[in-house]
This record gives sequence, C-alpha cells and structure tokens, in this order.
Amino acid sequence: MTNSYRAPVRDQQFVLHDVLDIGQYGDLPGFRDADADTVDAILEESAKFAEGVLAPISKAGDVQGCVRDEDGNVTTADGWKEAFQQMAEAGWTALSSDPEYGGQGLPHVLNLAVNEMVSSANMAFGMYPGLTLGAAAALYNGGSDEQKALYLPKMIACQWGGTMNLTEPHCGTDLGMLRTKAAPQADGSYKITGQKIWISSGEHDMTENIVHLVLARIEGAPEGVKGISLFVVPKFLPDSDGNPGTRNSLKCGGLEEKMGIHGNATCVMDYDDATGWLVGEENKGLKIMFIMMNEARLGVGLQGYALAEAAYQQSLAFAKDRLQGRSLTGKKNPELAADPIIVHPDVRRMLMDQKAFVEGARCFGLWTALQGDLEKKSDDPAQREKSGDYMALLTPIVKSYLTGKGYDMVSQGLQIHGGSGFTEEWGASQLLRDARITLIYEGTNGVQALDLVGRKLAMRGMRPITSFFAELDAFVEEGGNETTQPYVDAVAATHAQLKQGTDWLMNNALENFDHAGAGSHDYLNLFGLTCMTYMWAMMAKTAAAKIAAGDTDPIYAAKLQTGRYFLDRWLPEGAMHLAKVEAGADSMMAMTADEMC
Amino acid sequence: MTNSYRAPVRDQQFVLHDVLDIGQYGDLPGFRDADADTVDAILEESAKFAEGVLAPISKAGDVQGCVRDEDGNVTTADGWKEAFQQMAEAGWTALSSDPEYGGQGLPHVLNLAVNEMVSSANMAFGMYPGLTLGAAAALYNGGSDEQKALYLPKMIACQWGGTMNLTEPHCGTDLGMLRTKAAPQADGSYKITGQKIWISSGEHDMTENIVHLVLARIEGAPEGVKGISLFVVPKFLPDSDGNPGTRNSLKCGGLEEKMGIHGNATCVMDYDDATGWLVGEENKGLKIMFIMMNEARLGVGLQGYALAEAAYQQSLAFAKDRLQGRSLTGKKNPELAADPIIVHPDVRRMLMDQKAFVEGARCFGLWTALQGDLEKKSDDPAQREKSGDYMALLTPIVKSYLTGKGYDMVSQGLQIHGGSGFTEEWGASQLLRDARITLIYEGTNGVQALDLVGRKLAMRGMRPITSFFAELDAFVEEGGNETTQPYVDAVAATHAQLKQGTDWLMNNALENFDHAGAGSHDYLNLFGLTCMTYMWAMMAKTAAAKIAAGDTDPIYAAKLQTGRYFLDRWLPEGAMHLAKVEAGADSMMAMTADEMC
Repeated sequence: MTNSYRAPVRDQQFVLHDVLDIGQYGDLPGFRDADADTVDAILEESAKFAEGVLAPISKAGDVQGCVRDEDGNVTTADGWKEAFQQMAEAGWTALSSDPEYGGQGLPHVLNLAVNEMVSSANMAFGMYPGLTLGAAAALYNGGSDEQKALYLPKMIACQWGGTMNLTEPHCGTDLGMLRTKAAPQADGSYKITGQKIWISSGEHDMTENIVHLVLARIEGAPEGVKGISLFVVPKFLPDSDGNPGTRNSLKCGGLEEKMGIHGNATCVMDYDDATGWLVGEENKGLKIMFIMMNEARLGVGLQGYALAEAAYQQSLAFAKDRLQGRSLTGKKNPELAADPIIVHPDVRRMLMDQKAFVEGARCFGLWTALQGDLEKKSDDPAQREKSGDYMALLTPIVKSYLTGKGYDMVSQGLQIHGGSGFTEEWGASQLLRDARITLIYEGTNGVQALDLVGRKLAMRGMRPITSFFAELDAFVEEGGNETTQPYVDAVAATHAQLKQGTDWLMNNALENFDHAGAGSHDYLNLFGLTCMTYMWAMMAKTAAAKIAAGDTDPIYAAKLQTGRYFLDRWLPEGAMHLAKVEAGADSMMAMTADEMC
Repeated sequence: MTNSYRAPVRDQQFVLHDVLDIGQYGDLPGFRDADADTVDAILEESAKFAEGVLAPISKAGDVQGCVRDEDGNVTTADGWKEAFQQMAEAGWTALSSDPEYGGQGLPHVLNLAVNEMVSSANMAFGMYPGLTLGAAAALYNGGSDEQKALYLPKMIACQWGGTMNLTEPHCGTDLGMLRTKAAPQADGSYKITGQKIWISSGEHDMTENIVHLVLARIEGAPEGVKGISLFVVPKFLPDSDGNPGTRNSLKCGGLEEKMGIHGNATCVMDYDDATGWLVGEENKGLKIMFIMMNEARLGVGLQGYALAEAAYQQSLAFAKDRLQGRSLTGKKNPELAADPIIVHPDVRRMLMDQKAFVEGARCFGLWTALQGDLEKKSDDPAQREKSGDYMALLTPIVKSYLTGKGYDMVSQGLQIHGGSGFTEEWGASQLLRDARITLIYEGTNGVQALDLVGRKLAMRGMRPITSFFAELDAFVEEGGNETTQPYVDAVAATHAQLKQGTDWLMNNALENFDHAGAGSHDYLNLFGLTCMTYMWAMMAKTAAAKIAAGDTDPIYAAKLQTGRYFLDRWLPEGAMHLAKVEAGADSMMAMTADEMC
C-alpha cells in the first residue's frame, strides 16, 4: 500500500483561525508576520512536502532501517538524505526560531501544526530535525554568546544535526546516578568519557556535522543530580572558520534493534576523551536540559495525535473500500456482493473514537503551544504568568494523555483492518510499532503522572491549578445556547470530577505519599479528559457561532456531530478514573515485593 | 535476555483442585483417569517441556521466522522441528482426544491448562499442534468413519499436521462470498481450485504430511453461505496403507510478512485442481467448520491470558531488578544507589493489573472449559443442557474480553521496562507483537461482540442468559462472611449493571438494530467484567475457606490481596461500559459514510 496521507489543513485552519483566533495577537512579536494568508500558505506548502516527499519514504525507513558499518558510520534509508536536504533548503525547520540566528521567528503554535504533518507522514524522519532543534533550543537557553553564534545558525538551518545524551545503561529516569566523566583541560575545554545509550539521531549521513549535547559529571563534582553539567560535543570540531574540522573521539558503538521507528538511528554513543565545552554553569546542566525536555514533551504529545490522525485516515479509507457483510439496517450497497464495512456500528465506533480524539487532541496541542507563545511574547505580565503556569501544569498531561490515548487509537485503526492490519503490507502495523515509543521516551508516562501529582499540583502555592480551574469555572458560568449547553454541562461534569479527585489527593497524599503515586495515572487521565472536554466545548461554540452566522462550510456541522460523539462516548471514562484515584494505595501496595510472584 | 518462563503450576492447581474441584466429577468418563496425582504429574511434566524446550526457542522463531523456497517449501526456525517431534513423541497433544483414535480421553479442562503453558512459552509454536488438533476436531465431528480412521490417529499423534482454510483475498468474515471451486470427479473425489490466504501452519517441515481442511463451493451450489462445503485436501495423498503417497497439486504460494508470530508460517495456499474429499454433507461445510471455530475461540481467549502471564513474569522480574529512583515513603534499599522500581506505586499498579487479570482470566478460561467437558460428559441431562448453553453464550466473551484485556496487560508489561521494552533485546516487544493477532483471528473481537448481542442473547428463547443470570443471583443470595461479602457485593453490582445493559439492548435494539451493534463492544466488556468478578468471588471464597480451615499456604492470602485489588481497580470500568451501551447509536451513526473524512 502506498502511504496516501493527506495533511488536515482545513482542520488546522479551523483551530488556528476560528477557535484560537491567533489573528488577535497580531501586535505581538512573531504574530505580526503570521497573518492568515501567511499561515495558510505555510500550511499548504508544508502539506505538499509531508504528502509528497516524507510519506512516500516512510516505509523504506521501516523496512531498511539504518545501517552501521564497522567504523560506526550510519547510513539512513533510501531517499532520506535527499529529503532531509530538501527540507533544510526549504527552510521550514527554522519557522519559529530566533531570526538573530537565521530563524523566521514565527509563533510556535504554527510550528506545531507543521510538525504534526511531519509526524503523521513519517515520524521517524521528523525526529532528525526534531532533535536538532531541541538541542538548538538548549544551547539558545543555556549557551554562551559565542556558542550560540557558532552552532545555532547551522543547527537551525539543519545544516548540522543535534542530539540529546542523557541515558546510560544503568540510569534513565534517575539521572543522579550518571557516570560519564568530564575532565577539565588547560584550554578551557573538557575531555568527555563514557557511554550513552538510546541516543535518537545519534549518528547518520544526513548532515555534515552532528552536535551532541551530553550530560556528564566534572571530576570532583557533588554526587547525585547536583553534580551534573551539560557539554556541547560536536562530531567534528569546528575550525577557526566555524566549519567541520578534526574528527572528535566519539562514535556510534551500536544501533539498537527496536520495535518501531526503524528509520531513526537509535545509537549507543561512546565518548572516549572526546573534546567538549561546558554549556552554562558547572553542575547546572540538568536545568538547561529540562527546559529542552519540557519543550520536547509537547512534541511527543503531538506525535500521539499525529499518528492517530494517520491511523484514522488509513482505517477510514479501508473501511470505505472493504466490502464485507451487510448493514444491520438493510443493504446499503445492493448492487454489490456486500456493503463496505463502514456501515457496521462497531467499525464506526472505532472510526469515531479516532476522529473525536484526534480533533480534540489537535486543539489541545495547539492551544497549549499558544500558551507557550504567550508566555514568551505577551505584553501583559499577567498573561505571561498565567500562560507560564499553564505550560508547567499541562505539559505532563499533553505528553501522557495524548500518547496513551493516541496509541489506543492507532490500535483501533489497525483493528479495523482485520487480518490486513496484522500484516506489514498495509502500514497499520508500522504506525502501531512506531507509536509505542511515545509512551516511553522523554520520560515515561508514569513519570509524567508523578510529575503532575508530585510537583505540578502544589507548585507556586497551587497558582497554576487554581488559575486553570478558575478559567473552567468562568467558562461554565458563561453558559451556552441550546446547541452548546450540553458541552458546557460536560465541562462542568468533568471539572467537578477533577476537583473531587484533586481534593482527594490533597487530603490523603500527605498522610501516605503512596496514595499520590497510586492515583497518578488515573488522575492524569481524568485531567486530560477534562482538558479535551474543554477543547470540544470551545470548538462546539465556535462551530455553532459560524453556523448561526450563516456559514455553510460543512466542517462546522461535522464538528458538532463529532463533538456529540465525544460527549456520549468519552465522558463516561471520567467517573471511572475518579473511582480509581479514590481507591488509593492500600490494595495496590498490600503485598511486599517478595510476596509478588 | 533468555526467556525464563516458569509455568504457574501451583496457580493452575488452585483453580483445578480448590476452586473447580474437578475431583467431584470422578465418576464421569475421562475424569475417572484425572485424579489429583495424575493431573499434577501432567502439569509438572508439561511445565518442564514448556520451560525447558519451548521457551528457549521462542526468540529464534521471532528473529528467523519461516523461510520459503522457490518450490513453496517452508522451513521453520532452528530447533523447532526437533521440538515438535519431541512433543509428538511425548504424546501430550493427545491428552483430551478420543482414545478410539489414540487420544488419552482426559478432560478438556486439563488440556487447556497445558495449552496455557505452551502459549506462554511460545505462542507461535503452539499454533502448529493447535491447528492440527482443531482440524482433527472438525474431522471428528463431521467426517466419515473411513476419514476418521485414516486421518485422526496421525493428526492426534501430530505425526501429520492440519490446517483450516477459510479466508480468501476478498472475503474473511463474510464467507458467503468465497469462490474456491470444487469439481466432482467420477471416483467420488473433487478437484479443488482457488486461493486461500492467512493459512496458519499452512506449510512447514515439521510433519510428514499436512491435512488441509478447505471450504469451497461445489459447481452449481447455491450462492452465499448455503453453498459452502468442506473438503479434506492432504498435501500428500494417502496411499493404500494410509502413508503419504503422491504429492497433491497444492502449494504455499507465499508467506505473509506479519507484525508478530513470525515463527508460525502464515501462508497463501494455492490449490490447482488439487484432489480433495467431501467432509460431511454437500453445502453443509460451514456448520462443521463453526464447531471447530468455536473450540478454537476458547483457545484464542487462552492465548490472551497466557501472553499476559508471560508479560507479567517478565515485567515482575524487571521491576525487582531495575534500580531507579527512591520510594516515595523512604528508601527501601539504602545501601544501594537506588531502589528497585517495584517500590513505585505506578509500577506496582501495572504489575497488579496484570496479576489480577491473569489469575481471574485463568479461572474464567478453565471454568468455561469445564463447562465444555460437562456438556459432553455429564450424566445429568440438565447439566449438559446448562453447560451447552453456557458454552454458546460465553465463547465470544472468553475470546474477546480475554484477548482485548490480555493485550492491554502485555502492553503494560512492556511499559514497565521503559526504553528496554521498546528494544527487541528484552522480549517484551515480541510478546506485544505476537499478542496483537489474538484480537483479530478466529473472528475479530468486533464480530464476536456482534455474535453476542445479535445471536447469543436471544438464542433458545433466552435460555442461556437466563440460566447464567440465575446462577449469579443464587451466588449473591447465598452471601458471604466478613472476608468474602465484598466480593459477593461486587458480583451483585456488576451483575446489576449487566442486567441494566441487557434490558437496554432488549428495549431499544428492535426499534433500531444499530443500537445493538453500537453497544456490542461495551456490552461484551461489561459481561466479561461480570464474569471475572464472579471468578474472583469464587476464588476468594475458596481461599478464605482454606485459611479458616488452618491452611497456611501463602497462596490463599495472596489470592485475597489480589482479589481486593481487582475489586478496587477493575470494578469501576463497569459503570463506564454501561454508560456507553446506553449511549446508543445516534451520535455514532449520525454522519453518512461520505461525510466521514
């Protein structure tokens, strides 16, 4: 099967223009250049690239994977290098980067829309520019002016690649245990020695240089997380002109055999007295890395719905095409031997689940990305504070809820294919295998849930959650009309459950911290459901207003129909999650580890 | 990682001896030879074989898959042929087959326990004897005495393999469209011509002959499902001594590239005027095949929990071994750099979910298999009728609920591994990829759900569901003691939800059949949850009675702890499923197929 992905431009326009009305921020930096025509032109050009260049080479990446030779050089799949260069030349990876370093300075929310297309079309490919821009963001936030001038223009242009090096064989989540060493040299540089694993895009043939950001411990540094520093360790040391010079003493020691994202090189990276330079202050490396990780987490949440979108398109086409059985309510296709399987309610259920999820999740992702823009660019300090609070609070939810549910939706897409879904011919299996990593990397979904209940709820004197709950209360207070009131009621209902769950945690977790951990997964999912309901309510209000104003674009009626499905079929999960939160830790932790067998 | 599967013999004994007390049926055929010592000896020998022979070659099957040469011959992975011969020689595939044809005539419930071990250790391998015995069961039910005498002894001994050939490229679920032709010959045989796809175990090097059971349409037969006949089409035509003679004109035209179960050859089978013989009557082939399919569905449900058991063992070992982070309630491992991740509640949640599911599911599987034995062997006609009703009613639930939830549990096992779960090194990925087919084959889970609401609920004047509900009511009526009453209350609660859902379907589906289809998935899951709760209540009563009688085996206390977790964390799903059933079809079917985009 060819990958016939079609970018959902109209749907993205609906969110950007109609729901979020990003035009209202036209006075802010970046937004000034993002008028509706520019936004539409960028979406349409990106769509062509994703559909015409990235989607067609996705399967080659899955089948061929990456190949490493004896010297540690890695070759990507057929056509990938050319596609990467085409992408770099078109300049769209620089969309939202700082113009001082060659970026276009456009809002991040627009960047997110474009990245959705890339991930839907070819997730493993998108990780190469994704990691590069993530590493650039860390340097932008923590590097010296000299480092920024040297690395950022080339990374933002994707002339050089970038990576993040955190994990070691014995430590992933718990970075305090990391052992990679940095020995100070007389010239101010450091010699880096150690092994890093699971380094996405760690080595490849697509760029003339690769800039590794490496967490390591300077000799004599304190133990644990307080002794970790960040280093920039390029594959080729820049010469005096800033061009790739001497080969650094680092290499790819092996490629990981993985379940999916075969097109992306997941490397063991061996550093053997490699030359690197400190980024930011000594022993303060984690802080810089976490800024980058937080941004990356939004990108992973995006992958969750981007893959669900691809699965939806794939399974919808299959369901319209595959003839099997007859409708329960009478033949729909009497002239043929059978009806298309889309007539069967259970197939429709799986399609509508995907559709309702993807459209709500897209709105959630873009709405959150807009908060990130407002945090940085708003001229109103109160707005900057509120948006910053929202970003902190909602990042773990965007990451975990959208990947957890996104993966379930990809699995439903596969299920619609029946036996064809299990074969590698149709592409459903690749999507499922690719999607599985999103629940794990950039911090597992369980770690995100613990971040939410353990840190984010109580942070800043509970200001973020208080602020967000006030927004929901105000929305409910405002009410709706005949069409939209059911959505408002749904926000009220899920929000009431969320408040009850929050109170339960507040009242019980101090007495026994395990209650917080025990409820974290379901609490996060209840929070995610509440956010999705709020998104659907905003979309419904927008669509209803358009229809009331006489707009006959069928997208608006479709939004209201899909939204009703969301209310009917997704809301019942709220009470379940609340009951599980309130079940606490007792039966979960009753057995000792030794008794577990 | 080596596959260190350990068969849960003690847990199976708990269900067989303590909960089901199969010794009480000692007067019935088959059960006479299944005294406790014999049962235990069989379980222990099977455990050794599964652990020592099948588990170690599972990964080779995944990595090497099956290889087809130009002539259509298929070679299985290293060690598989030898293991198959070892299994055949040990004779344990014949456990529950009719002694007239070389079987041991033991109860099917015991067979199911053994098959769990095989599936946990090496699912793809287990499909070779599984399909063989399934085909033998179809011949046993539908074949002539001559056919039985010719084929059954060799198939039951696994000297010859067997397959089921239903699916064609354009039809799977909807067999009425099948096109494979059968032309009658003067000698009473038929020439079979057509292409079948997705034929598990269709061609391999493990047996001297392979007996294909093929659905085809005799020239001039009625259209649709009323014109389908069943044929036995051996790879080598038996000679006058019943040994493999002339090669038949059929071959494996290709192997399917699949997501998992690589060790099993999934074949395109090309029949080109192949010689076959009618099994049973003309145009009555589907009925025989469906007897076999129904038995096979129990086996697929078993795979659901067998793979979850393997995932549980794998992830439990990982969680006890992997050091990362500290317990929220204080260091558990102060002398080491970190605590094992099993101390984290969210990891424990994923482990306890698996444990509570597997133990409940195992009881459900064995309890249902026992109904199958009683249907055939009880000397009480009322019991035979009741057990037959239960088998009909519960088969789609065992198949779909146990595979759907089982797959989720396997995914949780993978999640516990973090990044290691996504690599192919640790085996979690293989389990997930293997498990995914169980939701699809032998009738997709959606087709099972439709079978439940569309056929099974109303069948025989609603006698099966009335009978099963009466059993639950009586159980609730009987009540419990201080320890067990919460379980009884849970049965009452889920049963009340199930009755409400049943009433809703009865009251609404006639007016609009789509309501039945729209609610089928959630109704089936609500039914499955009710059955699981009933199983846990029976297990809890058994364990509590043992403890009250002074038995200090720690398994009984563990059952009560795991059962409490089940009540806390699984029961909340019931109300969610009920709400979705009652949501009906309106919002699901609101858009036309054309409007879906």
